[in-house]
Amino acid sequence: MTEATQPQKKILVVSAHPEPRSLNATLAAFAVAHLRAAGHQVRVSDLHAMKWKATVDADDFPDHPADRHLDVLAAHEQATLAGRLAPDIAAEQDKVRWADAVILQFPMWWFSMPAILKGWIDRVFTNGFAHGPAVPPPYSEGAFGGRRALVSVTIGARESAFSDRGIHGRLADVLHPLQHGVFWFTGMAPLEPFAVYGTVDLPAQRFAAAEREFARRLDRLFTDEPVPYRPLGGGDYDRDMRLLPGVEAPGASGLDIHVR
Amino acid sequence: MTEATQPQKKILVVSAHPEPRSLNATLAAFAVAHLRAAGHQVRVSDLHAMKWKATVDADDFPDHPADRHLDVLAAHEQATLAGRLAPDIAAEQDKVRWADAVILQFPMWWFSMPAILKGWIDRVFTNGFAHGPAVPPPYSEGAFGGRRALVSVTIGARESAFSDRGIHGRLADVLHPLQHGVFWFTGMAPLEPFAVYGTVDLPAQRFAAAEREFARRLDRLFTDEPVPYRPLGGGDYDRDMRLLPGVEAPGASGLDIHVR
Repeated sequence: MTEATQPQKKILVVSAHPEPRSLNATLAAFAVAHLRAAGHQVRVSDLHAMKWKATVDADDFPDHPADRHLDVLAAHEQATLAGRLAPDIAAEQDKVRWADAVILQFPMWWFSMPAILKGWIDRVFTNGFAHGPAVPPPYSEGAFGGRRALVSVTIGARESAFSDRGIHGRLADVLHPLQHGVFWFTGMAPLEPFAVYGTVDLPAQRFAAAEREFARRLDRLFTDEPVPYRPLGGGDYDRDMRLLPGVEAPGASGLDIHVR
Repeated sequence: MTEATQPQKKILVVSAHPEPRSLNATLAAFAVAHLRAAGHQVRVSDLHAMKWKATVDADDFPDHPADRHLDVLAAHEQATLAGRLAPDIAAEQDKVRWADAVILQFPMWWFSMPAILKGWIDRVFTNGFAHGPAVPPPYSEGAFGGRRALVSVTIGARESAFSDRGIHGRLADVLHPLQHGVFWFTGMAPLEPFAVYGTVDLPAQRFAAAEREFARRLDRLFTDEPVPYRPLGGGDYDRDMRLLPGVEAPGASGLDIHVR
């Protein structure tokens, strides 16, 4: 791909599987290789390889006196603005700041991210960096405006169970806390998730097909239409952050009312 | 309260806040004291005090050869059935097995649980214990049938933003992965969540009111109607785990179609 059709971009791949030979880790490695072959710059946060600390605690704040009440919100803001966060957190914040797009590669565990990845968000997306009074307001502009975000998730269950009427809930609804609550909240433009289902015993043929589809999604990382969530400041919400009556598309219901 | 009105029960309180003097930790301590005063047996998992390990990795499986591919699902099942999980996991499984009800007390971080609590679920709710072929089928009977579950969550945002049309999504939808995907999936009967909003600067008066309301919810832990999610085996779903056409209540939409 020439620079004329797709200029070089900076992409952060965060992956969260304990086994480097897993399907999940294989997809992460595939993404890195594919994006580099397309001329992009790629940085990787392989959370298990990094032995990423998942838990927010007083050790995250080198200046925090051990005997003082730890108010996480206030401590995050103070340490972030003073440049006094633990070095592992600061390094990840640099990567997010640097990136034009963030890809989260993880196995779905209990209808959510593995704890190590949730802990990456809890610790890296601090008040003062990802949200709070020191950065642009959430839901549209946000701290990370202009960046794109792609979830690439492997799922043991079959697709039908995550379909519109599937018992697990629609994939879009199950991932809403991440897609809308993390990405869109911080101003990132979330793409439709890339999901591989039925991964407990995935035949080689289906795995090859999944890689081809993933390649297509990666090629369109900067051109696909993001999920058109509504901006908070766009006139659709009242001062109490409730969607105004009648704004939603005819027939839209559930969490879809927040999609334009 | 006499045994005639509410026989003594066994309750596990799992709490997940790094600061013992926080509102959250105060609510956890309140629940423990209140339930004990009512004659119940209470056990506590204070995850930060326990320095709970949040991340699933090879160390969870003492028998797993370091050089062998770690298939988490298979390793969980094998170690669980052989009684060869790491001791901290086995101890928590004993508590869940023992309990008639489980209360999860946590602050909402990024529209979900803190990583340390997600890691309690990831590590404790193993294949062979909480799901999989070795236990009763999910969604109704489940591994933990007969038990009750209560979320007690503190939320920085105001309530309107989590209302039916609130920008963050309805609280029931945001907590669906936990209420339906963890509790109901494993056969526990989830109660309506107990939520305290606006906790960033909660006035003492509102805190006292929140404690009184929490006390009422704790008193009704075994008598309140659980959220009436649909059982998988009750005839409402097809063989691909999709809700049959027309089964939902008139007007029900979004994730509510899975509520009777």
